[in-house]
Amino acid sequence: MADALPRAVTRLIEELSRLPTVGPKTAQRLAFFLLRGTSGQAQTLGRAIASLHEGIQTCGRCRNFADSDPCAICQDPTRNTALICVVEDPLDLVAIENSGGFKGLYHVLHGAISPLEGIGPDDLTIELLVRRAGRERIGEVVIATNATIEGDATAMEIRQRLSDLGVRVTRLARGLATGGDIEYVDAATIAQALEGRREL
Amino acid sequence: MADALPRAVTRLIEELSRLPTVGPKTAQRLAFFLLRGTSGQAQTLGRAIASLHEGIQTCGRCRNFADSDPCAICQDPTRNTALICVVEDPLDLVAIENSGGFKGLYHVLHGAISPLEGIGPDDLTIELLVRRAGRERIGEVVIATNATIEGDATAMEIRQRLSDLGVRVTRLARGLATGGDIEYVDAATIAQALEGRREL
Repeated sequence: MADALPRAVTRLIEELSRLPTVGPKTAQRLAFFLLRGTSGQAQTLGRAIASLHEGIQTCGRCRNFADSDPCAICQDPTRNTALICVVEDPLDLVAIENSGGFKGLYHVLHGAISPLEGIGPDDLTIELLVRRAGRERIGEVVIATNATIEGDATAMEIRQRLSDLGVRVTRLARGLATGGDIEYVDAATIAQALEGRREL
Repeated sequence: MADALPRAVTRLIEELSRLPTVGPKTAQRLAFFLLRGTSGQAQTLGRAIASLHEGIQTCGRCRNFADSDPCAICQDPTRNTALICVVEDPLDLVAIENSGGFKGLYHVLHGAISPLEGIGPDDLTIELLVRRAGRERIGEVVIATNATIEGDATAMEIRQRLSDLGVRVTRLARGLATGGDIEYVDAATIAQALEGRREL
């Protein structure tokens, strides 16, 4: 195969194969898609990747990736600064923003506690959150970690670390997803929806 | 979401979403994988994509993508120049090279006849193949198009176009794949394996 394809193509297939979810066959498909397109299209994508890190900052307050420090959300004067939503990842923050249901500030942990993956509390931004809660006038911390073992462990750790500060700590409700058909909902979710039942 | 992520990230997610097999969620995963890696890693991949088209030529003889024209295979003095294998795509050529079973030259069609997709014989390099067969001393053309309706239609068209030139036209054998369990082989393949049966 040494001579069967141009070096630039084999090199690109190799580079693309390093990406998550991209196996060798997908890498080949992507490389040939780019090769069959125009040089300009490949350059646009290539530059977007090569320059990705340029100008991206981490907000010193909420730790989200941002164009400025503090980020646009932390600078937004219409936000409720007494309310902080704690998320594992920037994309969780995006999902919550898109829901339109939250108008406070955020704190991005950049992961969750996972002994299996060797991720402990000190690998996350929990200490920064604790210091932030001690310094800012915060009324409530809403923990929006994933509904997984890792997310639960992280929520417990944060609740404990904030317990001395007299801050109200809440967590996203567990229950049925909108549009969910009870017949197909897993047992753990039904149990949690029962436990969290509310007056009609 | 306008302010929730840096512009460079949302732009990259948009660009990645244009790639085949990459949906919005995969695009997000890839963008954050690159963002969490080093700037150098993103630059390596970005440059490999941006410079993909540079220096890549199409071999004037076999139409494969190559670093030179004629390509390394067409220039190889150890190849049997009287034997041409016709493939739909450069990656088919790579697969045949990797099999080690072919030492002739190639001809890349860059597609197959597909009325549904609006691809006719003139959109492929068939005319070039016919001219090549008339000009070069070719003893045999092995058609290695895919075992699909499109591949079959393309093979038929090529056979017909070469019929006046007195060139031997063959096609890859159809039958059981190596390691195939007859219980699980589709009916059409079994029928073709029976039809193509050989003396032991």
